[in-house]
Amino acid sequence: MRFFVFTIFPGYFDCFKNYGIVSKAIKSGKVEINTVNLRDFTEDKHRTVDDVVYGGGPGMLLKPEPIFKAYDYVKTISKNPYVLITEPWGRRFDQEFAKELSQKQDIVIICGRYEGVDERVKSIVDEEVSIGDFILSGGEPAAVVIMDSVVRLIPQVLSEEESLKVDSFSDGLLGYPNYTRPPEFRGMKVPEVLLSGNHKLISLWRRFMQLKKTYEKRPDLLEKAVLSLEDKKMLEYIYKGKNFEDYLKGEKIA
Amino acid sequence: MRFFVFTIFPGYFDCFKNYGIVSKAIKSGKVEINTVNLRDFTEDKHRTVDDVVYGGGPGMLLKPEPIFKAYDYVKTISKNPYVLITEPWGRRFDQEFAKELSQKQDIVIICGRYEGVDERVKSIVDEEVSIGDFILSGGEPAAVVIMDSVVRLIPQVLSEEESLKVDSFSDGLLGYPNYTRPPEFRGMKVPEVLLSGNHKLISLWRRFMQLKKTYEKRPDLLEKAVLSLEDKKMLEYIYKGKNFEDYLKGEKIA
Repeated sequence: MRFFVFTIFPGYFDCFKNYGIVSKAIKSGKVEINTVNLRDFTEDKHRTVDDVVYGGGPGMLLKPEPIFKAYDYVKTISKNPYVLITEPWGRRFDQEFAKELSQKQDIVIICGRYEGVDERVKSIVDEEVSIGDFILSGGEPAAVVIMDSVVRLIPQVLSEEESLKVDSFSDGLLGYPNYTRPPEFRGMKVPEVLLSGNHKLISLWRRFMQLKKTYEKRPDLLEKAVLSLEDKKMLEYIYKGKNFEDYLKGEKIA
Repeated sequence: MRFFVFTIFPGYFDCFKNYGIVSKAIKSGKVEINTVNLRDFTEDKHRTVDDVVYGGGPGMLLKPEPIFKAYDYVKTISKNPYVLITEPWGRRFDQEFAKELSQKQDIVIICGRYEGVDERVKSIVDEEVSIGDFILSGGEPAAVVIMDSVVRLIPQVLSEEESLKVDSFSDGLLGYPNYTRPPEFRGMKVPEVLLSGNHKLISLWRRFMQLKKTYEKRPDLLEKAVLSLEDKKMLEYIYKGKNFEDYLKGEKIA
């Protein structure tokens, strides 16, 4: 997959490209992250990319020419790039959207500026995308988030072990609490069950904690999740404020 | 305001700090962005920050010691830092959350890893924060988004003109379409009203387009927005699929 990021700050992406999974994916040739400097597509001495707003108002807008010229340039390399623009009112970015994008061959991300982009640019845009209800200074931080999230979904970018972990999250519930060494740290102990070596018990405890955390923090997710009979039994205990030990005892009685 | 970002990739933030409003805010002394390398708070030869999961499972967890030691270090500099950790199930980051954070003096952001963080770290955390329902490789892209969004809300970081623009967005509706030169580009023309010089008409058109865009793309926002009588009249036209010209004619008849 190839990304072409249209920006006035091409250096913004240098760091992002050098770390973690994104860096590995680039080195292995699974992904290309190309930054396209809009100033390279201007023709005046000052390499102007913005201009005042017709009808008046504060701020400057990104001009249409440099963006259309950058797009013409990408079209000489890519037959059918999918074009995104970051906009506060765009389609909300989520894991489903990330999955869709991970199937594309070439993606253009036009980094909007808060001040705005000439409306005519929308004629080359396939989708407007927003990462959330907050104001950013420009589309660059959003582009970083989108690419990070999409890159890890490209086949063979994650190792088999890493993918397994992704799958376990994708059941629609929040994760269970995790602990590593030492078993006691500043008076705080790792729950005994995790040290028990009893794998059946551990997996029951983890499921209970997953359901409990989801109920407490994101009850909306429970409505959509696929729940087993055992899950539903656990939830009855959770709704009543009971803990895992209560649930285990109940199991013995039943 | 000071940020202390706990990360295993301190260089990740170098680029972000060098561009746009964030860079200006740092240079003017309005904000400090300090990265705290968790590896500096390890004691073994390999500077290990992660370890296997108790009870089994794929992936590695961030160990508690380096994070607690980094926190102890920050406490020698800051009396009462507000501690955030990036977590998929955290409180959803939005403009309201950003405003709250912009009032804090010192903020710690612990960049979680997708694989997770030892649960005991939560004992020093004030809030878990999520920027959206998508999976990132780590907390770093989220930390960039949070800081970008908060920095621009710190008093005097934005110029008066920039702030004005923010205020106009904050009325709870989406923005109106904007155009800049040239008046015609590749056959696409700037709407005539914007070239008319009639400021009353321009401001009516912009309001109509704001309401129309909000109705089409984010109708949920209309329910919360404070609407004038004129707004409601415009919406009657919009609901019926009428355009701005129809609305203007209707005005003359009335």
